[in-house]
Amino acid sequence: MCRWLGYVGDPIEPRELLYDTERSLIEQSRFHSAESPAPNGDGTGLGWYGRHERPARYRSTTPAWGDENFRELASEVASGLFLAHVRAATGTPVQETNSHPFRYGKWLFAHNGFISGYSRLRRQLLTAVREELFPCILGSTDSELMFFLALTFGLEEDPVGGLRRMAGFVESVAAEAGIHDALQMTIGLSDGHDLIAVRYASAGTANSLFVSSDVGAVRQLYPEIERLAHLPENARVVLSEPLVALPGVWREVPAGSVLRMSAGSGVDEQPFEPVAPR
Amino acid sequence: MCRWLGYVGDPIEPRELLYDTERSLIEQSRFHSAESPAPNGDGTGLGWYGRHERPARYRSTTPAWGDENFRELASEVASGLFLAHVRAATGTPVQETNSHPFRYGKWLFAHNGFISGYSRLRRQLLTAVREELFPCILGSTDSELMFFLALTFGLEEDPVGGLRRMAGFVESVAAEAGIHDALQMTIGLSDGHDLIAVRYASAGTANSLFVSSDVGAVRQLYPEIERLAHLPENARVVLSEPLVALPGVWREVPAGSVLRMSAGSGVDEQPFEPVAPR
Amino acid sequence: MCRWLGYVGDPIEPRELLYDTERSLIEQSRFHSAESPAPNGDGTGLGWYGRHERPARYRSTTPAWGDENFRELASEVASGLFLAHVRAATGTPVQETNSHPFRYGKWLFAHNGFISGYSRLRRQLLTAVREELFPCILGSTDSELMFFLALTFGLEEDPVGGLRRMAGFVESVAAEAGIHDALQMTIGLSDGHDLIAVRYASAGTANSLFVSSDVGAVRQLYPEIERLAHLPENARVVLSEPLVALPGVWREVPAGSVLRMSAGSGVDEQPFEPVAPR
Amino acid sequence: MCRWLGYVGDPIEPRELLYDTERSLIEQSRFHSAESPAPNGDGTGLGWYGRHERPARYRSTTPAWGDENFRELASEVASGLFLAHVRAATGTPVQETNSHPFRYGKWLFAHNGFISGYSRLRRQLLTAVREELFPCILGSTDSELMFFLALTFGLEEDPVGGLRRMAGFVESVAAEAGIHDALQMTIGLSDGHDLIAVRYASAGTANSLFVSSDVGAVRQLYPEIERLAHLPENARVVLSEPLVALPGVWREVPAGSVLRMSAGSGVDEQPFEPVAPR
Repeated sequence: MCRWLGYVGDPIEPRELLYDTERSLIEQSRFHSAESPAPNGDGTGLGWYGRHERPARYRSTTPAWGDENFRELASEVASGLFLAHVRAATGTPVQETNSHPFRYGKWLFAHNGFISGYSRLRRQLLTAVREELFPCILGSTDSELMFFLALTFGLEEDPVGGLRRMAGFVESVAAEAGIHDALQMTIGLSDGHDLIAVRYASAGTANSLFVSSDVGAVRQLYPEIERLAHLPENARVVLSEPLVALPGVWREVPAGSVLRMSAGSGVDEQPFEPVAPR
Repeated sequence: MCRWLGYVGDPIEPRELLYDTERSLIEQSRFHSAESPAPNGDGTGLGWYGRHERPARYRSTTPAWGDENFRELASEVASGLFLAHVRAATGTPVQETNSHPFRYGKWLFAHNGFISGYSRLRRQLLTAVREELFPCILGSTDSELMFFLALTFGLEEDPVGGLRRMAGFVESVAAEAGIHDALQMTIGLSDGHDLIAVRYASAGTANSLFVSSDVGAVRQLYPEIERLAHLPENARVVLSEPLVALPGVWREVPAGSVLRMSAGSGVDEQPFEPVAPR
Repeated sequence: MCRWLGYVGDPIEPRELLYDTERSLIEQSRFHSAESPAPNGDGTGLGWYGRHERPARYRSTTPAWGDENFRELASEVASGLFLAHVRAATGTPVQETNSHPFRYGKWLFAHNGFISGYSRLRRQLLTAVREELFPCILGSTDSELMFFLALTFGLEEDPVGGLRRMAGFVESVAAEAGIHDALQMTIGLSDGHDLIAVRYASAGTANSLFVSSDVGAVRQLYPEIERLAHLPENARVVLSEPLVALPGVWREVPAGSVLRMSAGSGVDEQPFEPVAPR
Repeated sequence: MCRWLGYVGDPIEPRELLYDTERSLIEQSRFHSAESPAPNGDGTGLGWYGRHERPARYRSTTPAWGDENFRELASEVASGLFLAHVRAATGTPVQETNSHPFRYGKWLFAHNGFISGYSRLRRQLLTAVREELFPCILGSTDSELMFFLALTFGLEEDPVGGLRRMAGFVESVAAEAGIHDALQMTIGLSDGHDLIAVRYASAGTANSLFVSSDVGAVRQLYPEIERLAHLPENARVVLSEPLVALPGVWREVPAGSVLRMSAGSGVDEQPFEPVAPR
């Protein structure tokens, strides 16, 4: 099981969330937990919106805990919207093209989960990707393919709709093959303005997802915690597993829902329901 | 342009051909030549038949000249049939799954060349791969896809036939897209018994390919060269570019031909003509 | 904390001990345990005695669980004496030259543990290495330096004596700097004939070390276990942590002792006591 | 032989000098030249002054021409002072800790050249490094050691003096060992304000070094070249080999000299003469 973290708000150094907390994403990549008995040592990535409309990206196959370049960037970059990811491979090779986040134009995409029976379904799913998008698929993961299916089904015009149609399509292809627990996913997606997060599973318990509470309210709860003083008022963080165990700071996102937030906005929460593409 | 080398004969250490000659494959990987102005520093690989029917394989993304593990193996292994490859990427990522040789069951495959317009044709070519072979494609190169197309078209029962039908299919798909110089290729292929080598181009000059002369005859030409004394009587070497500039040692393989040889056999040479699969 | 495994006996494929057991070294590299809460994902290595007096070696920085080349070699090699190692870095960089085992001439060396205060002591320890050995130090770990100090202090003529003098020297240099828990170590060492294993700590509990019992006796205990039928009669395995939880199969090596064994010999066990070099 | 490039002036994207010119540093890394018959494929690095006093750094072992992360950073970063380097190893391992530039506090250091007889001299040179600097040496190159010797000899207070004493010390240690062509070097050094460049050889021809002319003058020479219009008025570039073959744009730095320049200043040029440290 992978782990990821998305941030939107006034620009901060990713380091503050990736390294400085008691239970940072980097620590999560190394140590086990109830949910993740294996380390997330099969790929490291950071995508961030900076000086251009197109997001910048760093990806490596070095485990995050020993990745010196990742550590440098996390301090040197200051960004108001970024997605970080640590990978635990589920059957596809460890290579940079399989590290998250994936990128297309101004879009970034990170995923935790899998498609059940992916090696059987891959060919049919791949064939459904729109012809002009096909050459942009550089790796071999289910995650990247989910992103390009969502793009095929209109993600650029209607991001949540694209994701819903992708999920519906994957489930219908899987169902034909007798697979009824096709999707396990939390997704982080951005166009540079909004941060969108989905938690969904076709069957069983969906992988966990958490969203930070309003920073002002959190500060009132913990006036003594200096770290919280650094976080901008308008900041929101979405992530696979809480960074610190402070009651009231993290709220679990219900399974089957999609969040949409931007700097300073509230968090818009809707049900997430797959829909067959056509 | 990549470089490769195939050997068949009594077991030797690959080192003798990869490192010890004046102009070894490793030196060829580093230095330019008329044919190869860029270094072959985008992938290194060795496949060899050893203790099992299935060949063993080492692949890396480290340039061959600095790859310590490759150097170790080239001395530790003693094999009667091996294929070595150094890669110069032509558009697809540098990653282990894109390093040659490729393997399927008892088969090894190495390639030098490219498919013209590959990024445009890839989707259609990929779709033609037989369903049960599809999950075995791990990388994203034209080379690996050519191998799996040849397997789709019967390479296991009829290796040369499989390659001819692959070439014919690629050319026909390319022609529909208005591409008439579809294939540039030298190919090394083996099942552990025979070493098969092809030199072919759809148009223009085919990449070079050379085959060694009979070892006995060569020794008579150069009785003073100690290195030749090490080569077994029944040895044959096929490669992209001569290792040493000794007249009479290397014979250029004519464009549009296929060689078949095994330990102690002569070299069977036939024309190589693509054929449309059906 | 690293993990390592040494084998001596009739030739086997390392795979049988590294991959096939219920709790193989590879699984140990990935998953936590009471002793090792962090993964051993910072370096992978295999040294084996094969076709030459000098052992062959493979080293990488890829975590063992995803290292395809390591997996290949573990099946292709058949060796009567090998040392495998998975690394968890303790302050020095993740790079091939810091992966174990280390090699000098016919000797292989693997280590689990550390020198306390290494960054402070390194300069003085390095200066003590014999001048002609100095250029052979390629990495920056405490482990490699311990090996070259033992070589400096006569390991080639008297391996256990060299190790004892190395330990005594490190402890005396550390003591001058006010460090009294200088050494934490289990060591695997071989010259291609004997396998030597040490368990020692200057203070506190020494890292664990286990040795396999006589294979014949073990088979009588577990006649139904097919895997044991594969192990040669004369085999001995030494390792950081038991591979399977079978009572009677593994015996804990007492702290402060050194074992010496070879194919078919019994296990010679002596106390291990550091001695100041001069 | 390595290649490097230093820039000082108003902030630009390194991409403009590393990728966009006809004969960029990246192209220089791949293709041969009279001076550099082998590719510079053994290490890639970029150090830049950005959001902090301490420079940021990216280092890899991927050849520059295929390094996707380097390409990303070269577009995402905008910096008024940076040093880029592509490495051709001369005897020490290919690993990130051996990639340039090296860093200490606010200082960056890049080098092209070598110390003759380095493997023989290394131990004595290393021993001369000041004790508190010693733990900061992470790699094994002559280049990094030259930097820490210069720091030992006062580089922080007097950068040119530190370099002169380093050169004098290396030459005297080498001379004792009978080596009289000890140093071959061009050096790029910065503290974030000044860019310092040295060209020097103990004997024979020093590796080449070039400095750009005044941008205004260059524009008058080539009013039609759009690329020049992008360069800030106050920009200066120092590099191993000219990026483009425009007469009047690059001036060769004389052997045995040191340049000092900053944004908008002229170029101060002095003789560079080694001096024995004490």
